[in-house]
Amino acid sequence: MQADAPGALRPGGRLVVIGLGPGAADLTAPRAASALAACGDLFGYGPYLDRVPARPGQTRHVSDNRAELARARDALALAATGRAVALVSAGDAGVFAMASAVFEAVEAGPAAWRGLEIEVVPGISALLAAAARLGAPLGGDFCALSLSDNLKPWTVVASRLTAAAGAGFVLALYNPRSNARPWQLAAAFDLLRPILPASVPVVFATAISRAEERVEIATLASAGPERADMRTLVLIGTAATRQIARSGAPPWIYTPRRVAP
Amino acid sequence: MQADAPGALRPGGRLVVIGLGPGAADLTAPRAASALAACGDLFGYGPYLDRVPARPGQTRHVSDNRAELARARDALALAATGRAVALVSAGDAGVFAMASAVFEAVEAGPAAWRGLEIEVVPGISALLAAAARLGAPLGGDFCALSLSDNLKPWTVVASRLTAAAGAGFVLALYNPRSNARPWQLAAAFDLLRPILPASVPVVFATAISRAEERVEIATLASAGPERADMRTLVLIGTAATRQIARSGAPPWIYTPRRVAP
Repeated sequence: MQADAPGALRPGGRLVVIGLGPGAADLTAPRAASALAACGDLFGYGPYLDRVPARPGQTRHVSDNRAELARARDALALAATGRAVALVSAGDAGVFAMASAVFEAVEAGPAAWRGLEIEVVPGISALLAAAARLGAPLGGDFCALSLSDNLKPWTVVASRLTAAAGAGFVLALYNPRSNARPWQLAAAFDLLRPILPASVPVVFATAISRAEERVEIATLASAGPERADMRTLVLIGTAATRQIARSGAPPWIYTPRRVAP
Repeated sequence: MQADAPGALRPGGRLVVIGLGPGAADLTAPRAASALAACGDLFGYGPYLDRVPARPGQTRHVSDNRAELARARDALALAATGRAVALVSAGDAGVFAMASAVFEAVEAGPAAWRGLEIEVVPGISALLAAAARLGAPLGGDFCALSLSDNLKPWTVVASRLTAAAGAGFVLALYNPRSNARPWQLAAAFDLLRPILPASVPVVFATAISRAEERVEIATLASAGPERADMRTLVLIGTAATRQIARSGAPPWIYTPRRVAP
């Protein structure tokens, strides 16, 4: 039997990159659930893999949250040996999650990987889940922006924040704060205060749809970074974003569709 | 029996605003499916209601695509009489869909409506479905922007396009073209050509996950508005967005997570 050339594909291998949704089981798309059931090997960050129901015969490859490119390469290499491999993300795999790392690895990897069957199964992103929980804060145009400066310089983050807020986009900030990123969120609020009214709603939406869900509503004047952790999505409205007071419940927050001339 | 005060709530009424996802049944969240099954009255644009399985005893209130605020008011008014009412959108209800119109109607409506039980069930937006189909074009920061100037002046659309592209956001353009909006997409490309390299990928993603799905890949130099219709999402990359050629299949498109200093 002839040995495979380095990087050659064994038949039948495929990689499915799957967004599990924000957390609640009934917010995972059936397509994601059936793709997971059909794969023999599951890769992902531990807490995300913990959300996938166990099935006999499956192998779980648990990795650290930070090792995204290495995890993508390992999953591709195993798929190239003929295995059906799933790689899971929370939310949507294409939004600050694993899909981009997979294609970076494909482009830099063995030419044979370009022949692999790769499917990305979309999911409900944290952004959409948080918005739904609050009302309709994304009612107008919006931007999604990662505050992490692991992969881009802070000067780029700052210029994007300034441009988007100045142009009237609602802002959704991913990766607002962690032990390794203690100061970025406060710096972002400081950048935005000269641009937006002090009354603009700022929402800290943490672990939406999970048991530990927490929603805190502030304004740009009162918002402090201590309300965020690494599971938090921060939504910042525009000058047009409205709050509708309710008795016995937090206000609804929405951004009108109409923009005055 | 005493007559209800105008706008008073009858007990038991509620409104669920539901995103059905991009089209394929297996991309609708189970929470959306069970909410639909539990409601007696369904409101929505006809083609979206057609995607909901029929159930005996349910009443369908079909309305025109443009009558969003009137539809929201009708759904709220019926919920206030004690009915369990669902209002459906395609994609996610909070992204250029019905959720914002509902809260506009609540704010402008009878005070009693603020006491109604309203739930928004998130869905997989067209943006996420299109991105997954292509690879990972949203791999970096991104903006979602409606090209419709029904509700905002074109000068606002133009300034947002310019700001977002200049700052390095991937752009997702909703409502790019219809009979009533014939020129806006060409005008958007013209605005972007001095800002972005001619080689930037432009993707026309139409009816993703539905039987009539169509994906066309162009560059900013070659992109023409005739490839879009009202079911199309247009994705415009950044200078960093990559294409990975494959044999026998369209290229993968992804935006790297890393931004060079």
